[in-house]
Amino acid sequence: MSAVGVADSLLAGGLARIAQEIEAAFDAMLPVPDDARARLVDAMRYATIGGGKRLRPLLLTAVAEMYGVQREAAIRAGVAIESIHVYSLIHDDLPCMDDDALRHGKPTLHLAFDEATAVLAGDSLHAFAFEVLADPATSADPFTRIELVRTLGTASGAQGMAGGQMMDLVAETSEFDLPTVTRLQQLKTGALLGAAVEMGAILGRMPPEGRIHLRGYARDIGLAFQIADDLIDHEGDAARAGKAVGKDAAAGKETFVSLLGPQRAREQARMLVEQAIGHLVQHGKEADLLRAVARYIIERDH
Amino acid sequence: MSAVGVADSLLAGGLARIAQEIEAAFDAMLPVPDDARARLVDAMRYATIGGGKRLRPLLLTAVAEMYGVQREAAIRAGVAIESIHVYSLIHDDLPCMDDDALRHGKPTLHLAFDEATAVLAGDSLHAFAFEVLADPATSADPFTRIELVRTLGTASGAQGMAGGQMMDLVAETSEFDLPTVTRLQQLKTGALLGAAVEMGAILGRMPPEGRIHLRGYARDIGLAFQIADDLIDHEGDAARAGKAVGKDAAAGKETFVSLLGPQRAREQARMLVEQAIGHLVQHGKEADLLRAVARYIIERDH
Repeated sequence: MSAVGVADSLLAGGLARIAQEIEAAFDAMLPVPDDARARLVDAMRYATIGGGKRLRPLLLTAVAEMYGVQREAAIRAGVAIESIHVYSLIHDDLPCMDDDALRHGKPTLHLAFDEATAVLAGDSLHAFAFEVLADPATSADPFTRIELVRTLGTASGAQGMAGGQMMDLVAETSEFDLPTVTRLQQLKTGALLGAAVEMGAILGRMPPEGRIHLRGYARDIGLAFQIADDLIDHEGDAARAGKAVGKDAAAGKETFVSLLGPQRAREQARMLVEQAIGHLVQHGKEADLLRAVARYIIERDH
Repeated sequence: MSAVGVADSLLAGGLARIAQEIEAAFDAMLPVPDDARARLVDAMRYATIGGGKRLRPLLLTAVAEMYGVQREAAIRAGVAIESIHVYSLIHDDLPCMDDDALRHGKPTLHLAFDEATAVLAGDSLHAFAFEVLADPATSADPFTRIELVRTLGTASGAQGMAGGQMMDLVAETSEFDLPTVTRLQQLKTGALLGAAVEMGAILGRMPPEGRIHLRGYARDIGLAFQIADDLIDHEGDAARAGKAVGKDAAAGKETFVSLLGPQRAREQARMLVEQAIGHLVQHGKEADLLRAVARYIIERDH
């Protein structure tokens, strides 16, 4: 097989494997109770099982694997970060937010169930993420567990993802320049992708000073990911994306594509991916999956 | 001063002190950033500063004090549990949930700001709770911190508060009997009150087997609290309560008052408070504040 062929099959295998493992873990970890809470857990299962690229768990487990972390521990941490990602999608899709009807090719949760259930299912997945991390099954070492909680908490709150979502709301009525859009995206998407890489390193007991190159990798793929998302929103079709497209222009939001134009945006994304791979120079074959993920991030069509 | 007078002044002092400390802590811990996230943090401040009985932080610090915990650590944990409580009120007040206009005598957050900001501010306070607990400033001991996270996470998710809120939604269209209403309230309100007591004991490094009597205390005051809430909703006036009343009957929900009648409900609450105080028999004067809180829970009018 050629080098490209090997990378492709590594990526395809990695995506298929993580999708299967994360689905199975949610299925096992969210049993439906035999009381009036059944509807809540049904909603949590609807949102977490059967869809999604599982990119954050893939990044987390790929880093963890480089440092020889037990697969089960990495999958549990992957379930936690995916729970945060999914809760944010549920709340983002609500009528008072983006008012979306389609997610992963299915009706959004508030349409499949109702709005109140969607709010509560999002909140419950949010708490579930921290319950999973705090459980000794994730790591016997309390320091490892609390560092995971701290990293995920910071990445998902006002200093991270939720702060970026707020900037995104403000963007609809403001003229944002490129540095502000970059900052917005670093918070909205980059913080959680960065946390995925960081959490893999924490499980691998890498000291913070040993994570600098991984943070550089995460920062670059985070921005590249968002530029690719803007390109999909600008050019893609809803059927492949599994969600509505053309929303940013309709909402009057500045994006990388509106500010740079599609061609320069695409070049910028490619440059960022090469830069991300450059951060992995000290690693050998064990980082090949991370390299393949970096390339995938701008080549995907959904 | 009579024994009742001493208890009254202990309680009044405890309530005033915790209110001042929690307000000051939120004020210091939520500085407004100089970017488009300012609106988000303004909303978090609006919801957390200037109102609320601070009952959960009061319970947490009262237990922590019994075991000689540093006040600053207990206040940080108090901020965390209050953040969870406040986020749940913000989301509960949303139009798709209870659709309330008034909270602590002020317009609810989605009216003072907007719905999208209210969803995000709630989510940000949710994450903030775990950020605060995971920070070494709360405890130098990682095991203590992760136990705090685990206790608060379990109490707030589908196995606790959010699960109770789901049952509460279902209650509007179902005929719940007394055991089911009791279970609903144990989850919706009792879980977080129980977590407050438990977190104080965790900070005090009490082993789980030493917390059994405190758990009994928490369980009893939790139910008494909800019966008192039902009585306020049944009989109270909105001006004193600082929120709408008469909602349960309007929504067709069964409550302790509808199932037992107001008189038996009041007797039941009094009995639970005496039982709660009975769990503290092995403690001396150091538990006087907990005893006073138990009595306050059914004597308050809001």
